[in-house]
Amino acid sequence: MKMGIVLAFSGGLDTSFCIPYLREKYAQPIVTATVDTGASPDEALLSSRSHQLGAIKHYQIDARKSLYQDYLKYLIMGNVLRGGVYPLCVGAERVIQAQEVVKIAKKIDADAIAHGSTGAGNDQVRFDSVVQLMADDLQLITPIRDHGLTRQYTTQFLLDRGFEVSQKTTSYSINEGLWGTTIGGEETLGTIQPLPDDAYPNSVPPSEAPEKGAQLLIQYDEGLPVALNNQALPPVELITQLASIGGAHGIGRNLHIGDTILGLKGRIGFEAPAPMILITSHRELEKLVLTKWQRYHKDQLSDFYGMLLHEGQFFDPVMRDIESLMISSQQFVTGSVRIQLYKGNIQVLGCESPYSMFDTGVATYGEETALWDGADARSFCKLSGLQAYLAHKAQSKP
Amino acid sequence: MKMGIVLAFSGGLDTSFCIPYLREKYAQPIVTATVDTGASPDEALLSSRSHQLGAIKHYQIDARKSLYQDYLKYLIMGNVLRGGVYPLCVGAERVIQAQEVVKIAKKIDADAIAHGSTGAGNDQVRFDSVVQLMADDLQLITPIRDHGLTRQYTTQFLLDRGFEVSQKTTSYSINEGLWGTTIGGEETLGTIQPLPDDAYPNSVPPSEAPEKGAQLLIQYDEGLPVALNNQALPPVELITQLASIGGAHGIGRNLHIGDTILGLKGRIGFEAPAPMILITSHRELEKLVLTKWQRYHKDQLSDFYGMLLHEGQFFDPVMRDIESLMISSQQFVTGSVRIQLYKGNIQVLGCESPYSMFDTGVATYGEETALWDGADARSFCKLSGLQAYLAHKAQSKP
Amino acid sequence: MKMGIVLAFSGGLDTSFCIPYLREKYAQPIVTATVDTGASPDEALLSSRSHQLGAIKHYQIDARKSLYQDYLKYLIMGNVLRGGVYPLCVGAERVIQAQEVVKIAKKIDADAIAHGSTGAGNDQVRFDSVVQLMADDLQLITPIRDHGLTRQYTTQFLLDRGFEVSQKTTSYSINEGLWGTTIGGEETLGTIQPLPDDAYPNSVPPSEAPEKGAQLLIQYDEGLPVALNNQALPPVELITQLASIGGAHGIGRNLHIGDTILGLKGRIGFEAPAPMILITSHRELEKLVLTKWQRYHKDQLSDFYGMLLHEGQFFDPVMRDIESLMISSQQFVTGSVRIQLYKGNIQVLGCESPYSMFDTGVATYGEETALWDGADARSFCKLSGLQAYLAHKAQSKP
Amino acid sequence: MKMGIVLAFSGGLDTSFCIPYLREKYAQPIVTATVDTGASPDEALLSSRSHQLGAIKHYQIDARKSLYQDYLKYLIMGNVLRGGVYPLCVGAERVIQAQEVVKIAKKIDADAIAHGSTGAGNDQVRFDSVVQLMADDLQLITPIRDHGLTRQYTTQFLLDRGFEVSQKTTSYSINEGLWGTTIGGEETLGTIQPLPDDAYPNSVPPSEAPEKGAQLLIQYDEGLPVALNNQALPPVELITQLASIGGAHGIGRNLHIGDTILGLKGRIGFEAPAPMILITSHRELEKLVLTKWQRYHKDQLSDFYGMLLHEGQFFDPVMRDIESLMISSQQFVTGSVRIQLYKGNIQVLGCESPYSMFDTGVATYGEETALWDGADARSFCKLSGLQAYLAHKAQSKP
Repeated sequence: MKMGIVLAFSGGLDTSFCIPYLREKYAQPIVTATVDTGASPDEALLSSRSHQLGAIKHYQIDARKSLYQDYLKYLIMGNVLRGGVYPLCVGAERVIQAQEVVKIAKKIDADAIAHGSTGAGNDQVRFDSVVQLMADDLQLITPIRDHGLTRQYTTQFLLDRGFEVSQKTTSYSINEGLWGTTIGGEETLGTIQPLPDDAYPNSVPPSEAPEKGAQLLIQYDEGLPVALNNQALPPVELITQLASIGGAHGIGRNLHIGDTILGLKGRIGFEAPAPMILITSHRELEKLVLTKWQRYHKDQLSDFYGMLLHEGQFFDPVMRDIESLMISSQQFVTGSVRIQLYKGNIQVLGCESPYSMFDTGVATYGEETALWDGADARSFCKLSGLQAYLAHKAQSKP
Repeated sequence: MKMGIVLAFSGGLDTSFCIPYLREKYAQPIVTATVDTGASPDEALLSSRSHQLGAIKHYQIDARKSLYQDYLKYLIMGNVLRGGVYPLCVGAERVIQAQEVVKIAKKIDADAIAHGSTGAGNDQVRFDSVVQLMADDLQLITPIRDHGLTRQYTTQFLLDRGFEVSQKTTSYSINEGLWGTTIGGEETLGTIQPLPDDAYPNSVPPSEAPEKGAQLLIQYDEGLPVALNNQALPPVELITQLASIGGAHGIGRNLHIGDTILGLKGRIGFEAPAPMILITSHRELEKLVLTKWQRYHKDQLSDFYGMLLHEGQFFDPVMRDIESLMISSQQFVTGSVRIQLYKGNIQVLGCESPYSMFDTGVATYGEETALWDGADARSFCKLSGLQAYLAHKAQSKP
Repeated sequence: MKMGIVLAFSGGLDTSFCIPYLREKYAQPIVTATVDTGASPDEALLSSRSHQLGAIKHYQIDARKSLYQDYLKYLIMGNVLRGGVYPLCVGAERVIQAQEVVKIAKKIDADAIAHGSTGAGNDQVRFDSVVQLMADDLQLITPIRDHGLTRQYTTQFLLDRGFEVSQKTTSYSINEGLWGTTIGGEETLGTIQPLPDDAYPNSVPPSEAPEKGAQLLIQYDEGLPVALNNQALPPVELITQLASIGGAHGIGRNLHIGDTILGLKGRIGFEAPAPMILITSHRELEKLVLTKWQRYHKDQLSDFYGMLLHEGQFFDPVMRDIESLMISSQQFVTGSVRIQLYKGNIQVLGCESPYSMFDTGVATYGEETALWDGADARSFCKLSGLQAYLAHKAQSKP
Repeated sequence: MKMGIVLAFSGGLDTSFCIPYLREKYAQPIVTATVDTGASPDEALLSSRSHQLGAIKHYQIDARKSLYQDYLKYLIMGNVLRGGVYPLCVGAERVIQAQEVVKIAKKIDADAIAHGSTGAGNDQVRFDSVVQLMADDLQLITPIRDHGLTRQYTTQFLLDRGFEVSQKTTSYSINEGLWGTTIGGEETLGTIQPLPDDAYPNSVPPSEAPEKGAQLLIQYDEGLPVALNNQALPPVELITQLASIGGAHGIGRNLHIGDTILGLKGRIGFEAPAPMILITSHRELEKLVLTKWQRYHKDQLSDFYGMLLHEGQFFDPVMRDIESLMISSQQFVTGSVRIQLYKGNIQVLGCESPYSMFDTGVATYGEETALWDGADARSFCKLSGLQAYLAHKAQSKP
């Protein structure tokens, strides 16, 4: 005998609606699952809400370590910022949330998986792709999308059955996670207005940050952060601390216009102090130890990697190939970076590495070096411009 | 009869030395040429100094418009920042300076061209490549490089002949230009220390910027800035104004570790308010009007474009090919961007374009749209993940 | 009053079925349109068949010139071969066929456009994308796909209404066009068996080609073929002649496994003598006149260009951007290439160009050159390996 | 006490000259080293010649296994063909030859390494870069390059000292190796004439190949060839057999125009049956098991990989990064490919893999599939063209 439907549950309006709706429609037991990717959901509250709405069991999984290990790690190695600014706060979370929900469904031998995504956004693609790949024998139920249900409809449905519906006091939709918080609101339905300062829940605007900034020392080992101010920290803790410190200094608040997976343009606000600090410092450390071609190719592939992760294509094997290249490139990205946070600014003050190519004991820049002399340099200049010279000659023939 | 040697002349120690040195060594008339790429050199002073040192004629050329038209324009179109931070302040200047010096040499039918670059840095490559390509019939004389002359030597040489040598009061070497100022000093010979605040000549540090920030409205036409706060401005004037405004708000001060053309790592400080403001706002406007693949490919090629420009390969015809792609991509990058400057931060508040894909009258994001329904979306999700699904199936075969 | 439905008509079973089916189902006049992209359809026969089946009008358009001008031209410039072998024979045809059908629909103010594609293949995507983009106010009717109709069903439908259905004598499905012929059959439903020799309709197998091969001289102007054996020819005629000559020498028969747009793997046979001859010779001519970076970037972008064209994304503006780069790169790809055809082999014997970088009057290869001496070369060697050397030093530090 | 000079020795004119020349000039013992990369040099003959010319010791090293393991392996994984045709026969050989010579020099504690390359070609760069990186404490002596010595000079030098100089009977310079043979001659100093048929030493022209072709079955494991016609073979043996079989069928003879490292254009003839057979079959097998993005990115990076290997930059760490991506991509490239060789043609007849995505038990191409229906397909078509559609709408606004 199968064990019913596992519902990805956030406690919000749409997934709350799904519990009684699925019970009524499918006459099956409902199990809810909440996957913590950094928002620290209140397990007791969610469990109670889940049961109250009719679920027979609630699971809560802390997936923050896996989120770091399987996804965020590569976003650091690749310095991935979508459109130059956005640290992919949400894309990775949804994939791992779907994975964890599928694992529960398999564990309890469920018949079906349900999620509450609409048919307009990105999350459905990320969720569906994981279910299709990991559990193509399970039914996938998505009532909000399939029937185009409105918030009005789902609210009424719950009220009709005697369930409370919280009247939201904020008009902003917020997604919190380990890698940052994204914010949508009336302003982000257009492209002209910024979000108001108080729409960002966990950081201060630069103007309210303390006049005295903060200095941090971040230590990296093979491309990944391992210590903060000389204190070794596990990555989840390190990111959490950076988010807190950075938020207090107005770091990482921004807006981004991006391409949704289905092809529309979309705009979001976000606050992501930790990734901004890590990527800014990691990128600078890399400059000490990577050759120009290492940087070039890793950057180009990382941009693509971010695009495919954003688009829910995390399981395309090309992602494993790119991760292999990233890991190889990070072998010597070990060292420390000192940064200054000040009212929204991240300034890299300096960095050092035992593998620094800057200081190999053989070279001096800006002056003569021990490695070559003026005649060598002159010869190099002559030969390095040869192709352009020959092309120019050839194209100037009478 | 030939007309002697044209010397690229900055008025500094090395090129001052070159005038009497070349006269003595080659027994030829010396003509000096100074190319203004934004540093606003004092023509009367330079001319007087040139004659005093023994040159028979001094030329000064204002190349700022050409610098914009032939180089900076593409750095905006391509949002080119080396290593994610450095706006290529110097690389383009050197190429155009060399071009202008060659033009003078050809106009006056000179025998030779001379420059004062050392054999360690980037400038020699940029200068030599232009001379080789445009004037392979002229001799190229580079005494500092060829003989590895030290500042001590050149100073003494001038003093021996009764010329004054200014005792520098600053220990920083500064290169000012339209696209920004680069700064080298004792700190940048290593990677650990930042430059002190007062090493940046034309901007304030964020902490000294006014508490009240500034809002700017920048208008673009086909990818290029045309107006500031609704006032149409020619590009050189627009950039100059942005540099001044941005500098007053602590914008664009940074450090960068890069790869020199000959292969060493090098570190520089820079202050470049105008490019940071332009690239930040231009990039955001593009997000409204470019498809995801337009952005992707332009970004990848622009990174390469910046690398080759940095390396003095501006005349490789591939640069013209990439410029063609850039121009094509910018056809609809028209609109305006509103930004906030505040103590070192550039915040894009909003942007709009007559060609915005955000607002085509057919689409709504975050809600149902008129373009598709939930069933369409579900089908798309199923098919967009198909390859990863099939690969997974194939690789899981028993 | 609207003018009914325009049906893309090939005269085959599926589109023949569509005429009476659409008439009955929609009670609207049916207009058929056949777009010639190189198959030389028999206009009288198609027109007669169309009327017999109940259409009120038949249009036939010769789109071969536009096919060359808007698509094939770029496949030559880009040396586009999918998977290293397949010259994209079909992808471009479908897009232009859709475009021409839409033009007719607009001209006669039709209500709807219909095509007979199934739901499994690539053609539906190419056709739909054009209709969506060019005519989003017209209905798009696709009965075979929408109802999953089988050949058995459509055959019976026609027989029931007294229409003849030709009994195919071949078991291969053939698509002929200017750029080549693709062939599907029982063998291509798997990956193990080749097609039999006689499945290829317009060429001989290498073993049956004449023992005496053929030499051809192909002349290019700015990257495009303009003359064959010193006879200037318009491109459609030149391609047609090359297909005929090449086919007689067993050139261009092959099999390819590719990725269909929806994500499946698919296999096809094809015979495409003209593109193989043109791309092989064009690529070699380019080597004379392009710098290494021009080739590198054009190749990389051309691969992407072929992918998007294959996938029906021809109208993404990134395609115009890439075409701009291609055109720029071809400015000096002018000259002639002599090739030998022999029993399936294309051998480039030699090529020359007025813009050849091989022969600029300044360089000799394999011997000392006038451009540099041994000391120059030694210096270049030292400096060109510097980054790898420094990285090695840095990574070997104790 | 140091042990003198180790000379890379081929037995040809230039390196024969070097032995007495170096002895006289440096008054040091000379040790010769010949590294076999597939040419099967006659050890007894070379040793005798070496001693006769004055060397105190001769080493001969068989480096074919390392050549495969460290270089050729990746050229197969990457399907690397320079300019679409040339399998990089020489580039890899020179690097490993230099490596082995350095190893000997270190083993015997030599003072210096010498090679006989000229200052015009590619080999000097490859040789020098290895010596610089692996042995920057050893002197590098290159008399032919440094003094621009001619064949006339070196011949006379040997004759003057009573040494025989063989009068070459062929006018072609030949380089044989495991990965193919390259041929230079009078014809390749220009671009118009082909090499005569008999300039290719180890293969027949297609016209002389047997009328009856040959079928081969090649088996791959994780991207590398492991068996021929069901007989497991070590790679060197497998390549050697393929070269022999392919050469007998006229496979892999061609000409190529390329970019030399110093920037000139150069032309070579080559015969390389084994790489052409391996790359053609490997590429087709990959199509069964790689996703489209895996192929796309591996192809793009492999092109770059081939370029850097050609240019003697094998030790740039980016090469290790790219190799990591390649290895990851090949994890499932396991299976067999059946090919037909016939008078210069390689025809892939079929291929199969246990990991084939073609045959996953869920999909059928060309017909309806079990994975989606017509409505799914229609929805996918609508959404996959959305960005181009929106861009078109936006750009058509009045």
